[in-house]
Amino acid sequence: MTPMLQIALDIIPLDEAMTLVEQVRATVDIIEIGTPFIVKEGMRPVKAIKEAFGEKLVLADVKIMDGGRAEAMYAFDAGADIVTVMSVAQDQTIKNVVKAARERGRKVMADMLACKDIAARAAELDEFGVDYICVHTAFDVQHEVASPLEELRTLVDTVKSAIPAVAGGINLSNVERAAMLRPGVIVAGGAIINAEDRAEAARLMKAGMTI
Amino acid sequence: MTPMLQIALDIIPLDEAMTLVEQVRATVDIIEIGTPFIVKEGMRPVKAIKEAFGEKLVLADVKIMDGGRAEAMYAFDAGADIVTVMSVAQDQTIKNVVKAARERGRKVMADMLACKDIAARAAELDEFGVDYICVHTAFDVQHEVASPLEELRTLVDTVKSAIPAVAGGINLSNVERAAMLRPGVIVAGGAIINAEDRAEAARLMKAGMTI
Repeated sequence: MTPMLQIALDIIPLDEAMTLVEQVRATVDIIEIGTPFIVKEGMRPVKAIKEAFGEKLVLADVKIMDGGRAEAMYAFDAGADIVTVMSVAQDQTIKNVVKAARERGRKVMADMLACKDIAARAAELDEFGVDYICVHTAFDVQHEVASPLEELRTLVDTVKSAIPAVAGGINLSNVERAAMLRPGVIVAGGAIINAEDRAEAARLMKAGMTI
Repeated sequence: MTPMLQIALDIIPLDEAMTLVEQVRATVDIIEIGTPFIVKEGMRPVKAIKEAFGEKLVLADVKIMDGGRAEAMYAFDAGADIVTVMSVAQDQTIKNVVKAARERGRKVMADMLACKDIAARAAELDEFGVDYICVHTAFDVQHEVASPLEELRTLVDTVKSAIPAVAGGINLSNVERAAMLRPGVIVAGGAIINAEDRAEAARLMKAGMTI
């Protein structure tokens, strides 16, 4: 099955974000309101994007580290279908986010950023009932590490229930290799946003994912 | 020297937050815009609080995990004197936040939430040049662990340059014991916010810190 394509919206004003999503509407499956966007604007872009693109899944990349219930509920109240929690957070925080999601019929993605043991933590996250687990090469280290594909392989080999996802440095040059590992979600940001023709970049990305 | 008193503003509307800060203005040194507040409202409360209480240090509890430079700059642009980064983030993310702070003449607090080796990581954070290091018992586990005082003792014994801070479950029953360990900052939230007389609760907290 072709993975879902998630577009990460970071550091762009809301009106430009709306235009961008319109450009890639035919292709993307999940619209991510990125952490810098939330830091700057709070839940306003989550609400606006969900209202305008109700047929899409909207992910609020809150990167919850504590106060799992309250922060997840803010995201769900704003219309988010999926909220992110950090895999490095306390177990209880992650369980509280999962519980909030179950109450609202929404989903949780655990972000493996900075996790030192992907296999061991992914197995635990699977037990906690998170819906998606995303290996994620930090933006701040993308120039020094190759790609998250090795981590993706480990993740896919480990999880039983959760849907594997991959983020951080995925572009047209490596999307096919990523797709070969059969994640359920591939996250792209700069590879689409910085392209001259964003609609075409998203289409090419999706084509590369179709194996 | 008496530690600084930091009040954490979480999950309250902005107008109530403004009233609360007015009530404790005489006593508190640092006003923290808490993570749930930022998740909901973005940088708006940081800007509003700094404009209204310019003589206080304002801390934006962004809990940066990635994109260190961009997220720190958003906080500084909004008027934050201090921004938080997670100790569990990648080294490069923390260094990028410190660099952004140096450029702007602002400060960085590293949050030790969910850190598994306080002594080892605190020594590294000290090398990275963070200004404050805060041991922090997660809200989600405050019912199951005693208090962050043991971690505070480890932190104080480790750091050479950074100012030690403590957060999570500090209240009138344990503030004196916390102060005896000589942190530079003590963070209180519910112990002041949920008090019937907030001004008096803040005064008593500060008095307990004066040893």
